[in-house]
Amino acid sequence: MERNFLLTIEYDGTGFSGWQRQPDKPTVQGTLEKALSTVLGREIRVNGTSRTDAGVHAYGQRASFKGDFGIPTEKLAMVVNNRLAGGLRGKTGVGAVRIVEAVEMPSDFHARFDSKGKTYVYRIRNVKEMDIFQRNYCYQIPDPLDVEAMKRAASFIEGTHDFACFQAAGGEERETTVRTVFQLLVEKAGTDVYIIITGDGFLYNMVRIITGTLVEVGLGKRSPESVAETIVSCDRQKAGHTAPPQGLYLKRIYYDMEEVPGYGNIKTSGLG
Amino acid sequence: MERNFLLTIEYDGTGFSGWQRQPDKPTVQGTLEKALSTVLGREIRVNGTSRTDAGVHAYGQRASFKGDFGIPTEKLAMVVNNRLAGGLRGKTGVGAVRIVEAVEMPSDFHARFDSKGKTYVYRIRNVKEMDIFQRNYCYQIPDPLDVEAMKRAASFIEGTHDFACFQAAGGEERETTVRTVFQLLVEKAGTDVYIIITGDGFLYNMVRIITGTLVEVGLGKRSPESVAETIVSCDRQKAGHTAPPQGLYLKRIYYDMEEVPGYGNIKTSGLG
Repeated sequence: MERNFLLTIEYDGTGFSGWQRQPDKPTVQGTLEKALSTVLGREIRVNGTSRTDAGVHAYGQRASFKGDFGIPTEKLAMVVNNRLAGGLRGKTGVGAVRIVEAVEMPSDFHARFDSKGKTYVYRIRNVKEMDIFQRNYCYQIPDPLDVEAMKRAASFIEGTHDFACFQAAGGEERETTVRTVFQLLVEKAGTDVYIIITGDGFLYNMVRIITGTLVEVGLGKRSPESVAETIVSCDRQKAGHTAPPQGLYLKRIYYDMEEVPGYGNIKTSGLG
Repeated sequence: MERNFLLTIEYDGTGFSGWQRQPDKPTVQGTLEKALSTVLGREIRVNGTSRTDAGVHAYGQRASFKGDFGIPTEKLAMVVNNRLAGGLRGKTGVGAVRIVEAVEMPSDFHARFDSKGKTYVYRIRNVKEMDIFQRNYCYQIPDPLDVEAMKRAASFIEGTHDFACFQAAGGEERETTVRTVFQLLVEKAGTDVYIIITGDGFLYNMVRIITGTLVEVGLGKRSPESVAETIVSCDRQKAGHTAPPQGLYLKRIYYDMEEVPGYGNIKTSGLG
């Protein structure tokens, strides 16, 4: 009988050319599919929820695949993780990709189409001194950020808007550039500043462009209020720079609307 | 006039095939020499103090080189670091190698031959849960370590001994396997256990074999006292496993005997 598996996956994106399978390049999807195929004895293709870019990390990517495999669900993660260990220089018992959890879902479930929302976390290291060991895991901003100004700018981004201004060229064709940002938090923790954004979906490079724009607000290069004008303009040229991929983490995918942070609290666009 | 420069260098060893220059492989020395040669307009070869293995990191590697360069010493680090930024996927303003400091030394100074001692730090992550983001930066030991037993074992290693038992095959030919370990600390910090070892010099893989041996003591697989017997035996087979390179950091090189931790406190071998 065909079963439908949902995987929760974490990965260090440093050595990968992004999530999506590509010939002759190390990708997360390709690496995962190869391990699954070896373990299950048949070619496996997974449906991932988010096509993260090269250098972007994940704690909670999700992917599903089907097949009439006899393997107990609770053993799948362990067996595949043993296969993945040692990959991309991880010789200390864990690979650059790891299955956190495997569960069985109803046959009509699809990891991508059934997603109700996603949370991304962007990590900024806000200190003068560089740390070479952190260079692949954050965005280093040496000058002090005005976190209160960033919070105020963030409040204009929350809600349902046309986010065309935060979309980079080169992504997939989309039907609409209207999205809902359920929650956008800016939090200081020690010398780090985290941007935590939850939405029903994101346009190409949207989180990184929002981050770049908030950083420019934090550095006093633009006012918090200007961000509202930028959204209304629908003009990518009016938004900030694209923050580097190294600071971006796909934190969680939601399949239950009730679990989505900020849901029930949605503002409609009062901007335009 | 010829000048003699001493560099203090830090690097993330993850992407490198070790310190020593090799054709067609990314090495720390090769990367540094290439940047220096570009900046100074002439082929530069440096003398490094320690030939760290692939995957080993450094906060305080040292290297010297000579030449009649006009560049102000205080500008050298900045100019070379700008050149090194972006190397090995470090796109956040800092490369995988960075010059921490550059100073000018007397003409007869040599970074390697004038070394009075070195400190290495070995980082063990002593928790059950794996962390994929830590896999290149520590040795993961899931079972709890008995740090007190490790400290007792460490006390037998401090002092001047024939350390043939802690030498791996394949290193350079050495005149003697007698070395002095000035200080060997085992310290618990949160969920990490650090092994901090200072000596006048180390045999091939010596720190990693000492670490593997101490880990086996910490796991109760051998007694602290057995380590004294192992040293007396001069037999590599009697020592523990070689701990992985990912947890090892070259912390500091000393040129002044007075700065060496544990100097003045040296025990002579009372073991054999």
